[in-house]
Amino acid sequence: MLKDLTITEFLEQTASAEPLPGGGCTAALNAALAASLTEMVANLTIGRKEFQAVEEDMQEIAQAAADLRTKLQNDIDNDAQAYQAVLAAFKLPKNTDDQKKERSKAIQQAFKTAATVPLGVARDALQIMDLAARAITDGNPNAVSDGAVAVLAARTAALAAAYNVKINLTAIKDTAFVAELTREIEELEQQVIDKETEILAQVDV
Amino acid sequence: MLKDLTITEFLEQTASAEPLPGGGCTAALNAALAASLTEMVANLTIGRKEFQAVEEDMQEIAQAAADLRTKLQNDIDNDAQAYQAVLAAFKLPKNTDDQKKERSKAIQQAFKTAATVPLGVARDALQIMDLAARAITDGNPNAVSDGAVAVLAARTAALAAAYNVKINLTAIKDTAFVAELTREIEELEQQVIDKETEILAQVDV
Repeated sequence: MLKDLTITEFLEQTASAEPLPGGGCTAALNAALAASLTEMVANLTIGRKEFQAVEEDMQEIAQAAADLRTKLQNDIDNDAQAYQAVLAAFKLPKNTDDQKKERSKAIQQAFKTAATVPLGVARDALQIMDLAARAITDGNPNAVSDGAVAVLAARTAALAAAYNVKINLTAIKDTAFVAELTREIEELEQQVIDKETEILAQVDV
Repeated sequence: MLKDLTITEFLEQTASAEPLPGGGCTAALNAALAASLTEMVANLTIGRKEFQAVEEDMQEIAQAAADLRTKLQNDIDNDAQAYQAVLAAFKLPKNTDDQKKERSKAIQQAFKTAATVPLGVARDALQIMDLAARAITDGNPNAVSDGAVAVLAARTAALAAAYNVKINLTAIKDTAFVAELTREIEELEQQVIDKETEILAQVDV
């Protein structure tokens, strides 16, 4: 599993002439980093007398961020597997008309999954931005720059995921599916761009 | 060493209530990811007949990106160590006037190093953007989205590093040093923001 590689190994394998891990994995990793940093800001706030008023809120943020971290670190591998499934579908036999039909169906299904995984990453990244914003506003001010970095990483996660959604959509023939995912991913892109500007304008370092 | 942790461990340790690894480490990691993805785009171009005309250029990009990747994966640990050195300086004895003077000097020196490490990360991130731009323009078009993700990661690396430069500068008394680093980091911030917009406008996915 990619998530079990060391940082050095992950970077080496990304750099190699093999297409995996690629930009989609970097997207999921950045979303997981954003979740981790948000969780840290909450954890650096929890249990301290001066922040007692926001204790419950920070517990909630830490838990939500931890859940997203676990989900997103698995998405590093889910993204890679979705790409491998596309390659596998292309290798299916195409000798008879039935086989051709089956193969084409499998390819289309694989591309749909390959578009859906990064769409989920982008959705989660937006959610992390909202958690980070709460942690920045009410959390330990000593960790405010870590909250700001969470927001930056979440933006990269969502926009990187968007490239991977769109690239897979170019291969999909189901026009209703393409239209629906295009609409959602473009909306998510605009939202993370706007939200990043809005949140970081309030961080005074 | 942080670079020897698995992805899962690195995320867990970031999320914990310990301040390390924090936003500065995420900055260096993102710069290393950007270098890796740029290297991959070049490596997916090298040795292919249809890209023979840019072979030498891609070899140069791959080598430069590989050098930056190695440097930046070490900066994940350099950033953490610079922070630990600040904490260590604060723990120096302060019983006599001489000790107070020595301690104060050590603290100031430690903060200067803690500001200088992320400044280097931001400089390198800008350089990676230029390499990624060349890989996007002339490299294998099948990997264009990976090049775009490299640019996104480099922007996050530089802006995240900038937060860490500035936060350390607030503790430094040498006004000439503060003025010089403030000038450079603000210039770098503007450059990566402009360059990202410029490069990604040319990526049609």
